Amino acid sequence: MDIGALRAETPGCEQVTHLNNAGAALPARPVIDAVAGHLELESLIGGYEAAERAAPAVERFYDAVAGLIGADRDEIAYVENATRAWDMAFYSVPFERGDRILTTTSEYPSNTIPYQQLAERRGVRVDVVPDDADGQLSLDVLKAELAKGDVRLVSINHVPTYNGLINPAAEIGRLCRAANVLYLLDACQSVGQLRVDVAEIGCDMLSGTGRKFLRGPRGTGFLYVRRPILDTLEPPFLDLHAASWTASGTYEIRDDARRFENWERYVAGQIALGVAADQAAGLGLDAIEERVTALAARLRDALSERPGVTVLDRGRRRSAIVTFTVDGHDATALKMSLREQGINVSVTQGGQMRYDAAAVPAAVRASVHYYNTEEELARLVAAVPAPA
Amino acid sequence: MDIGALRAETPGCEQVTHLNNAGAALPARPVIDAVAGHLELESLIGGYEAAERAAPAVERFYDAVAGLIGADRDEIAYVENATRAWDMAFYSVPFERGDRILTTTSEYPSNTIPYQQLAERRGVRVDVVPDDADGQLSLDVLKAELAKGDVRLVSINHVPTYNGLINPAAEIGRLCRAANVLYLLDACQSVGQLRVDVAEIGCDMLSGTGRKFLRGPRGTGFLYVRRPILDTLEPPFLDLHAASWTASGTYEIRDDARRFENWERYVAGQIALGVAADQAAGLGLDAIEERVTALAARLRDALSERPGVTVLDRGRRRSAIVTFTVDGHDATALKMSLREQGINVSVTQGGQMRYDAAAVPAAVRASVHYYNTEEELARLVAAVPAPA
Repeated sequence: MDIGALRAETPGCEQVTHLNNAGAALPARPVIDAVAGHLELESLIGGYEAAERAAPAVERFYDAVAGLIGADRDEIAYVENATRAWDMAFYSVPFERGDRILTTTSEYPSNTIPYQQLAERRGVRVDVVPDDADGQLSLDVLKAELAKGDVRLVSINHVPTYNGLINPAAEIGRLCRAANVLYLLDACQSVGQLRVDVAEIGCDMLSGTGRKFLRGPRGTGFLYVRRPILDTLEPPFLDLHAASWTASGTYEIRDDARRFENWERYVAGQIALGVAADQAAGLGLDAIEERVTALAARLRDALSERPGVTVLDRGRRRSAIVTFTVDGHDATALKMSLREQGINVSVTQGGQMRYDAAAVPAAVRASVHYYNTEEELARLVAAVPAPA
Repeated sequence: MDIGALRAETPGCEQVTHLNNAGAALPARPVIDAVAGHLELESLIGGYEAAERAAPAVERFYDAVAGLIGADRDEIAYVENATRAWDMAFYSVPFERGDRILTTTSEYPSNTIPYQQLAERRGVRVDVVPDDADGQLSLDVLKAELAKGDVRLVSINHVPTYNGLINPAAEIGRLCRAANVLYLLDACQSVGQLRVDVAEIGCDMLSGTGRKFLRGPRGTGFLYVRRPILDTLEPPFLDLHAASWTASGTYEIRDDARRFENWERYVAGQIALGVAADQAAGLGLDAIEERVTALAARLRDALSERPGVTVLDRGRRRSAIVTFTVDGHDATALKMSLREQGINVSVTQGGQMRYDAAAVPAAVRASVHYYNTEEELARLVAAVPAPA
């Protein structure tokens, strides 16, 4: 990987030390140009007319995302963000009273709140599988819970937003397949930083976003749904793109994953997300994973050596996300102080993680991407203040 | 209205004769620049960091849209398009078995398919109020149907996509208020071309889009929900922006209309839609309505004089949408032939209008905006072929 060249085609690298890639990464020139180019075409010849002319680029999105995660193009839907992609999958599961959802302690509130909504509205039960000694979901407990029955869905995240771990997605997939239970994977924080292959993982549904490690535009995301289960999932919303009227006076839902889409969309974003996916695939996810996890490991080591710094990350495998506190310093104040020095980080609100009693209320999150350099990591480490 | 100046700040006016404004209108320079400027900022300093810096412009969206339609800012949600805005309202209505939905013959399939979905899933009944002699929804029949009881929702469009009419939205509002029945107005085709004031109309919920007569970006829309009913509507999807965890282990939904939003979004689009709404309000919706309806009326007259042309529009009040057929010519072929001459129109698929037996299967749709000129209308009329 030619980091110099990759940085040269990323205008933001000249402006900021960007360690907020788990928020939104800096886009590369081809992605920037794809959005800007299509928006310009829309302004010149009209929005619908531009979409017709750009139809091959719009269609390329499906091949690019499918190729990236080892899916078929008809298993991919373009959705405006990972939250709504996840929603379209989750709310289409035909839950019945008494069904159980198994999830993990590190689940994001935008997922745990929907679990609670289903629990209150539909009498579904949510069971949180505890962590093992390494801090990741306990496979032994998951297996035991699956054996108890009544599990309609295993729903977990691949990479939590706040604690540096990588969940054992493929091992979970094997257990779900053995138990014949639906498996929804929130891959919001993993697609683009890790090798993510839906066949290897064995998930039935997977949601992802454009803006994070894929380096696509904000306001873009996608949903993967495995072909054999597509027709068992009626989308919670339907429009004239997802379904059509039949001669007999009812509606028929389309048979590919686009049943989870709606017709109107941010077309420029869709085209650019396809470009971003092709770019990631071109670099190779194995190479990207190797680099980002190595950079993150080095950052954890360097931070740990600073007095007063506690690195909070856990799990057997670690992601590009590094979280830490500094004794006597408020995380938000720290973030703002770093911002003034040209270093972008974010703050994780561990207090929102309802299932994780071990989460600290707030911590600094520094998330690396392959375009970050050792110098940038050193800049962050040097900027961390002494304990107060 | 200085049409020359308005055209000069619309780059597309130099390129095409754009009569597909009911599809997506040509944006003006301030809207184009708002999107491009924010996307550039995102690429330079990061997506989250850019949103923080642009917070006033993001917040301006709510004031701009609220001001445009006579609402309060806390009654407005930013949603990625009119379909999803409508969905968030429609699917939040607490329907019970046996409830009736009253709608109109001209309802769009992206609404009629959801009605049918609710009918099949939840035992709701859909009653289509027939047209009166002018071709618009019959107020007498609506009143009689409301009197029969069991009506949970009156759900209609303001301006149908395909037949040139303007539904009597305010008269319908008065009947709904008198009957104390919820009223959802699909204003996708009216906001930006007509004076739309939610208090005058008396609707409880209203959905709109950015890309059509408001001249905003694709992939943007909004939902209005009247404050007093907000807490009676639980959104079908919830995330950590729409709701938060409470101390007692359940979730609390926020009390403004942003309960219908989700956190991640196309921020550049939101900013630009605010700019577009301000622009429309600055020109004045009364002035815009006067110009577009006059241009459309003139176009109908001129087309009617051409041999073999049938203008299909109906209703007492007519919108910016003009639909017609030419004897012996396929609508799609006609559209493509006009496109080659630099004239953008679209094709309406009347066959999708399940409730309207009078709809012709396909027709050409020419939809005007205030920036169109008499010369452009004459160009279209001259390009209409002789009957074949």
